[in-house]
Amino acid sequence: MKGTVGELGEFGLIRELTARLPSTPAVELGPGDDAAVVAAPDQRVVATTDILLEGRHFRRDWSTAYDVGRKAAAQNLADVAAMGAVPTALLLGLVVPADLPATWPVELMDGIRDECHVAGAAVVGGDVVRGDVITVAITALGDLRGKDAVTRSGAKPGDVVAVTGWLGWSAAGHAVLSRGFRSPRAFVEAHRRPEPPYHAGPAAAELGATSMTDVSDGLVADLGHIAEASEVRIDLKAADFDVPAQMSDIGQAVGVDPLQWVLSGGEDHAIVATFPPEVKLPARWRVIGEVGRAGGKPQVTVDGAPWDTAGGWDHFGEQ
Amino acid sequence: MKGTVGELGEFGLIRELTARLPSTPAVELGPGDDAAVVAAPDQRVVATTDILLEGRHFRRDWSTAYDVGRKAAAQNLADVAAMGAVPTALLLGLVVPADLPATWPVELMDGIRDECHVAGAAVVGGDVVRGDVITVAITALGDLRGKDAVTRSGAKPGDVVAVTGWLGWSAAGHAVLSRGFRSPRAFVEAHRRPEPPYHAGPAAAELGATSMTDVSDGLVADLGHIAEASEVRIDLKAADFDVPAQMSDIGQAVGVDPLQWVLSGGEDHAIVATFPPEVKLPARWRVIGEVGRAGGKPQVTVDGAPWDTAGGWDHFGEQ
Repeated sequence: MKGTVGELGEFGLIRELTARLPSTPAVELGPGDDAAVVAAPDQRVVATTDILLEGRHFRRDWSTAYDVGRKAAAQNLADVAAMGAVPTALLLGLVVPADLPATWPVELMDGIRDECHVAGAAVVGGDVVRGDVITVAITALGDLRGKDAVTRSGAKPGDVVAVTGWLGWSAAGHAVLSRGFRSPRAFVEAHRRPEPPYHAGPAAAELGATSMTDVSDGLVADLGHIAEASEVRIDLKAADFDVPAQMSDIGQAVGVDPLQWVLSGGEDHAIVATFPPEVKLPARWRVIGEVGRAGGKPQVTVDGAPWDTAGGWDHFGEQ
Repeated sequence: MKGTVGELGEFGLIRELTARLPSTPAVELGPGDDAAVVAAPDQRVVATTDILLEGRHFRRDWSTAYDVGRKAAAQNLADVAAMGAVPTALLLGLVVPADLPATWPVELMDGIRDECHVAGAAVVGGDVVRGDVITVAITALGDLRGKDAVTRSGAKPGDVVAVTGWLGWSAAGHAVLSRGFRSPRAFVEAHRRPEPPYHAGPAAAELGATSMTDVSDGLVADLGHIAEASEVRIDLKAADFDVPAQMSDIGQAVGVDPLQWVLSGGEDHAIVATFPPEVKLPARWRVIGEVGRAGGKPQVTVDGAPWDTAGGWDHFGEQ
């Protein structure tokens, strides 16, 4: 494809973006009408939205359009999974400059489509407008399949805290990229394209998880949300985390304790949940701590002490 | 409230935005978790999304934050109604500059909340990030209550074309504002705050509408979408439109045929539908034409001739 989005025009671009979108059995009516129609067999729909800006949430010199699409879709689909729901559909609001090569939004959509495929969802609608800053606004929908939603507020003293998925890989990759390197590849790839364990969300609900969230702001920060919503304390043990040797090497090279990435790095979209102690957890879940009674601050401890969660993310706070 | 959104911070702003949001019986879980949970009793959910930018879709010197909120919500909720569905929920993705007074997003949310109330929906989730251009990304959800969705593709030769709601009022208000005037108030108000006939969407589905859309790009342009999707021709009669005397006066003052606003002006979010000829339409529907067999271009005629739809809107096309 040649030319810019301005040359292609709004309707031309929408045609390109929707042309190669596959459907799924959940899609009763896809893109092209006033609204889409998506199956919601459970009679409830799970819905979440995120908005990403170039320069703030992604950089075109660090990530391809395809990777931005994968990542933008992943972070919304992971939110759906973290409620215990199966992702079904995704809608895209897109702002693109008129002088942007038309291949960029098309490859972005390819990434979104492929990540939806991994999660079992389909792109069902969207909107495209011209503007100065590339902006990707995504809404994801999901179905609870008859189970209760697993919120952040159900953790109880005595529960175990367990996690599945990757921790600290995206942050380590970010550290590598921000120092001008492109390797080790595995970590750079993890930063560009997270792999949330979508299946683990509904599986945790099935196992009886009492609370759950995906790790987007950092493990300690996100467990802090559970601790606050559930009015409990959460105690983690550093020895229960597995820091890969290569991550330690990067940490040494850049002068950062890799445990900082594991405990404070977000964007890998691991899924962390609390379970009653009697639940037998499948092998891919790692027990990393336990839930205690609330007793003042801090609400999350690591080896009994507060963790300096420097990775906690306030979009307005940074300068 | 004092200060900027930067001073309030992301979490402070989200707290302010969600503090005064009412719930409805359809909201099983509102803002504050990884995702919301909304009732979908019909076992299908209708979903649509739009993204609005300052400078392109609204101007802060023409519209208050409250009005921008009303309008942004209205255009999405109208899309849901135009499928024949009852709006249930809305999600908001918001980009705001750090130096924006915090009152602006709070009043925006008040407008969104109040428009949701008119339509019977509730705000159930969102995301707020800092950026240079105010951007409002809205997703609206709805429920079909057991009826088939009314798409753009079901119009049949012999059907009548009927419309309900306002036509051309927003465009006339835009013409007034763009010439530096603030009156006549009724048209300026219509531009700032459309009043879509939400109830008419599900009612039309009940009456047996064969196709339906809301008028967002302009009546002729939107009927063109129905003509194309249904593979029919649509013939309108100019004499069947009611141009208010005050709109004619504005047209004379600014040198524009007011019928241009009625036929090409969007953003009032009137609802236009096709019905089998035997359907008895309630008084608020105005029959404006009929559906014929497709026969080459143009697909929409006015008094038998093509209409120069100068108001047709391509977000990339304008310079």
